[in-house]
Amino acid sequence: MVKRVDCLKEHNTERENKTLKKIDGWLTSPKGFVAAGVTAGLKVSGKADLAVVYSEKPAACGAVFTQNKMCAAPVLVDREVNKKDYACAIVVNSGCANACTGLKGLADAREMQSFAAGLLNIDLNEVFVCSTGVIGAFMPMDIVRKGIKNAVAALSKDGGESCAQAIQTTDTFVKHSVYTAEIGGKTVTVAGIAKGAGMIHPNMATMLTFLTTDAAVAPALLKKMVKEVADHSFNMVVVDGDTSTNDSMIVLANGLAGNAVIDSGKHPDYQVFYDLLLAVAMDLAKMIAHDGEGATKFLEVNVVGAKNFAEAKIAAMAIAKSPLVKTAFFGEDPNWGRIVCAAGYSGAEMIADKVNLSIGGVRLVEKGLNCNVALETLKPIMSEKEISMEIDLAAGDAKATVWTCDFSYEYVKINGEYHT
Amino acid sequence: MVKRVDCLKEHNTERENKTLKKIDGWLTSPKGFVAAGVTAGLKVSGKADLAVVYSEKPAACGAVFTQNKMCAAPVLVDREVNKKDYACAIVVNSGCANACTGLKGLADAREMQSFAAGLLNIDLNEVFVCSTGVIGAFMPMDIVRKGIKNAVAALSKDGGESCAQAIQTTDTFVKHSVYTAEIGGKTVTVAGIAKGAGMIHPNMATMLTFLTTDAAVAPALLKKMVKEVADHSFNMVVVDGDTSTNDSMIVLANGLAGNAVIDSGKHPDYQVFYDLLLAVAMDLAKMIAHDGEGATKFLEVNVVGAKNFAEAKIAAMAIAKSPLVKTAFFGEDPNWGRIVCAAGYSGAEMIADKVNLSIGGVRLVEKGLNCNVALETLKPIMSEKEISMEIDLAAGDAKATVWTCDFSYEYVKINGEYHT
Repeated sequence: MVKRVDCLKEHNTERENKTLKKIDGWLTSPKGFVAAGVTAGLKVSGKADLAVVYSEKPAACGAVFTQNKMCAAPVLVDREVNKKDYACAIVVNSGCANACTGLKGLADAREMQSFAAGLLNIDLNEVFVCSTGVIGAFMPMDIVRKGIKNAVAALSKDGGESCAQAIQTTDTFVKHSVYTAEIGGKTVTVAGIAKGAGMIHPNMATMLTFLTTDAAVAPALLKKMVKEVADHSFNMVVVDGDTSTNDSMIVLANGLAGNAVIDSGKHPDYQVFYDLLLAVAMDLAKMIAHDGEGATKFLEVNVVGAKNFAEAKIAAMAIAKSPLVKTAFFGEDPNWGRIVCAAGYSGAEMIADKVNLSIGGVRLVEKGLNCNVALETLKPIMSEKEISMEIDLAAGDAKATVWTCDFSYEYVKINGEYHT
Repeated sequence: MVKRVDCLKEHNTERENKTLKKIDGWLTSPKGFVAAGVTAGLKVSGKADLAVVYSEKPAACGAVFTQNKMCAAPVLVDREVNKKDYACAIVVNSGCANACTGLKGLADAREMQSFAAGLLNIDLNEVFVCSTGVIGAFMPMDIVRKGIKNAVAALSKDGGESCAQAIQTTDTFVKHSVYTAEIGGKTVTVAGIAKGAGMIHPNMATMLTFLTTDAAVAPALLKKMVKEVADHSFNMVVVDGDTSTNDSMIVLANGLAGNAVIDSGKHPDYQVFYDLLLAVAMDLAKMIAHDGEGATKFLEVNVVGAKNFAEAKIAAMAIAKSPLVKTAFFGEDPNWGRIVCAAGYSGAEMIADKVNLSIGGVRLVEKGLNCNVALETLKPIMSEKEISMEIDLAAGDAKATVWTCDFSYEYVKINGEYHT
């Protein structure tokens, strides 16, 4: 665990440029946000399983959701909420996904929404609802109502950590990231939390991730930015290639930092705010790959020389999803043939006899041919906990980076023994 | 092993209709074919690693190959051979894939072809060349030449079994299937062998599979039929989602059965010959799924109610490739949520609240809702070695079946410890 946190710090330093500053904090770090996480009793373990996040001022909202056609009931509810400009709260439970639950599940999600709205004295369309956990079970609404009541009563500036804990399922560490920057003379803070360790191949968003910020930003612009940020962070992570039924990314921006409202891509403060959002989202996305079920190694797959970004991503995803590549890294074997093979079947254009491949900065394939690097040379690289690789497809100038993890006995154990 | 063979027999009875008859045999069962497998020394284990199949009469040929852009050198050579109508021989080695070997690899593949052609006294364009094994290593041509020489010298009617053994790599049993039928008063035989246990997600063909037949069939028609048969057999199998660099399916038809030449899809004997080819190909395809690396269970994924065949296949493949589904079956857990979820992200159209799902004939999901079947009821089904499931997408009338296997600790062990 300590090692992992250290690794993440190294990553984060890249992003600590002169404008962005990483700070320790939670969703409550931006001005005007309170939160709480409580044990309602949905998890057998007795761990926290219900959380509420609340902005004292209506916040511009932007969100993206799973593209899975079997999407969960709360996703259907949230798509409606996201059509509006402003929202005030997010209610989340873990332990039950409320997916494959039909009309009853939809009624339950709506009741979670209206029950929380009543307690918070706000409009029901100002409340996002999220669920994660077992698919196919109905929500035990008595427990859920009690949990929402307790969480709303517990809302405070100190509730950020308990909130982050309450959204976890098979996660082995709590994922949070906070950055600040000066925007128009005001300190703006962006905070985020995420959960997710399995069923991770986000399509438009990840399992569950929530970002809060006190930046002032126009709702229409925020919605556009959220999609773009998701495409460059959560949508570049894969653990097992399974896109969840519940993926949701929700951003609330309440404007309490007092900066001049950022209302277009040409606004002078647009870029720094985008960088802030992306910094938090990328941190969280990488943490999800680090915490992939059963993961022993964090893998960064860089594809360069692709025809366009879409093809670069397709090739990187094929490599990152390949069970043969993932098990090779688990076995600390520099089996480059499997990496080149995965790029080859991905569908991305590549010039077979011009392909270059490096692992950990050491060139293994040059113009499609084995460089015959001694295994001894690669041993220290393959035994690292974080390994990056780069493949040049020699078909253009585009590139993409995907984050993933290796495939271990532990993944099989976790998912073979996680019983319905 | 005994259990596996028993299982296969059950499968095969389905195909033993009044016209088709399954017999015990090898590639040498059809008239006019001889074969041999020898130990050249490419495998460290000392097992057989070089094979030759030869038809005493030039045979109409049809073949399909991997769509992987990093295709191996022999595939490049064979695409040229397949442009011609007739061929006489197949030379195969295991232990070295001759993939990612550039111009030298191509020269080596051409030398294998011409060396065998010289010994057999035929044109070099009448010889198919195949390789399977480690990617990225050059062919030890001294060993290969010696092996070809010994195999050609050993060619005989009794060489079918040694030939099938010589093409294996991580396979745990030898895959062969032979059917006969009366065609126009003549007995026609179709025989096939295959290898493949990992890197299995055939795209147009499988790892390596060879079919021989004494049927008389026009070359142009055979080429068309081979593609269609591959699409309904080998292209419906997935082990790990990795499409190999070397996938090849080659069919040789020498006409020695003496039947009237089948020259079009409207020929009266077309259907029975197609059924023969498909029966052999489906048997071999299912054997590959049975022998998936580390497999403990054979899984049949049936998708019905799809908009069209392409979407039915997409949904079935998504389920069959999902590590979450595969590990659940390994753990004998009827985790239907993962199956429905995989269909949902596959991209196939589906009506979420009309989806039905059964495992082993027991309905678990009806109209998108949990049927709450007791786990006790499912225990005997989940503990079977062969399990079939059916999901109805409620979006149309098309269907598809994909064969796969579960995902075990052993897969991780085999692929984590198989060192380059």
